[in-house]
Amino acid sequence: MNKFNSISAPVIRRLPRYYRFLGELKEKGVTRVSSKELSDKMGFTASLIRQDLNCFGGFGQQGYGYSVDSLYNEIGQILGLEHSYNAILLGAGNLGRAVATHMSFEKRGFRLTGIFDIDESKVGAVIRDIPVSHMSGLEKFCFENHTDAAILCVPKSAAPELSEKLYQIGIRNYWNFSHYDLSVDHDDIIVENVHLNDSLMILCYRISAGEGEKL
Amino acid sequence: MNKFNSISAPVIRRLPRYYRFLGELKEKGVTRVSSKELSDKMGFTASLIRQDLNCFGGFGQQGYGYSVDSLYNEIGQILGLEHSYNAILLGAGNLGRAVATHMSFEKRGFRLTGIFDIDESKVGAVIRDIPVSHMSGLEKFCFENHTDAAILCVPKSAAPELSEKLYQIGIRNYWNFSHYDLSVDHDDIIVENVHLNDSLMILCYRISAGEGEKL
Repeated sequence: MNKFNSISAPVIRRLPRYYRFLGELKEKGVTRVSSKELSDKMGFTASLIRQDLNCFGGFGQQGYGYSVDSLYNEIGQILGLEHSYNAILLGAGNLGRAVATHMSFEKRGFRLTGIFDIDESKVGAVIRDIPVSHMSGLEKFCFENHTDAAILCVPKSAAPELSEKLYQIGIRNYWNFSHYDLSVDHDDIIVENVHLNDSLMILCYRISAGEGEKL
Repeated sequence: MNKFNSISAPVIRRLPRYYRFLGELKEKGVTRVSSKELSDKMGFTASLIRQDLNCFGGFGQQGYGYSVDSLYNEIGQILGLEHSYNAILLGAGNLGRAVATHMSFEKRGFRLTGIFDIDESKVGAVIRDIPVSHMSGLEKFCFENHTDAAILCVPKSAAPELSEKLYQIGIRNYWNFSHYDLSVDHDDIIVENVHLNDSLMILCYRISAGEGEKL
């Protein structure tokens, strides 16, 4: 439990976006920002932004705006990004390789410690300094290396058996790209699902409806 | 413009999720579903679901629930999935390959018509029956083949120049994986951004906060 548990779910869902924009401002050397400026950049109303940031005692000062640094650090702390959760990635196909290669794990509270695949031809390839191991060594690996989370980049058909195995090993946290609904089998797990098709459907809607503005 | 423009943005954002769950019910041969059952599966409250579906004159009948088929079709129509927008994909690295390979474009209102990369060594490789073309042929391709949307799977550093080129060619709709904020340069475009890091941060939050329930 952290000290911000009273913050509502919709606010939490928006925090990564604030964090991202504040990070960009930091990089540009900007030190203060008003809710109006954040609003223009992010497409939320200034009043929603003030409300959101008030939830955790934001650092706004009438006429001076928010300290970019303080706000950035505070949001990072709420999100728990100072952690270094050990994560393994399952499935070293295109998707798994893309996730392993492109994600900023270390800046997002994670450390990628192992990559596994069922396909012998992928075993031994090195991605992000990590050699791909065969799935048969999964249990031993997790036994010897504390593992907090699993990233599922396997096909939907492989997910039920694999996720059951991971559950039996004791893994309770999942970043799930597999399109299989893990919560069907267990309700004591944390699953963050990535549904790229949902995003594609929203694009289709917006083109069809002629909606340029942000949804 | 379609006939459902009065539906609010948050409802629209939830529609792909309804569509996904209803599709799964359809596959299982389920013909009717109550808001209570949808609520159990989807983690929204039954009252939110009734409200959402009422927005477009949902087909619920007291005691009988909703017709899975009608609801599925209606939501598909609202999202405009009957379209077949021509989309090209830029960047045939791991991410681009994963997107080209795994997405159900045809079921989501799109048709993938071309794949481009700047890297000569990737040119000619065939992904989803489409040979990767060199980026130098982009303009000619779009001139000869009507192109509705571009999928950006290029690094952030390559995005400003490329997106400007696409804009000059006349493309106004983007599915953007590049982490570059396209709307900075033009405000008459439709951009659907994919920020996988945001999802990873939410997972970090939920692990840190011990929050198993759906956010």
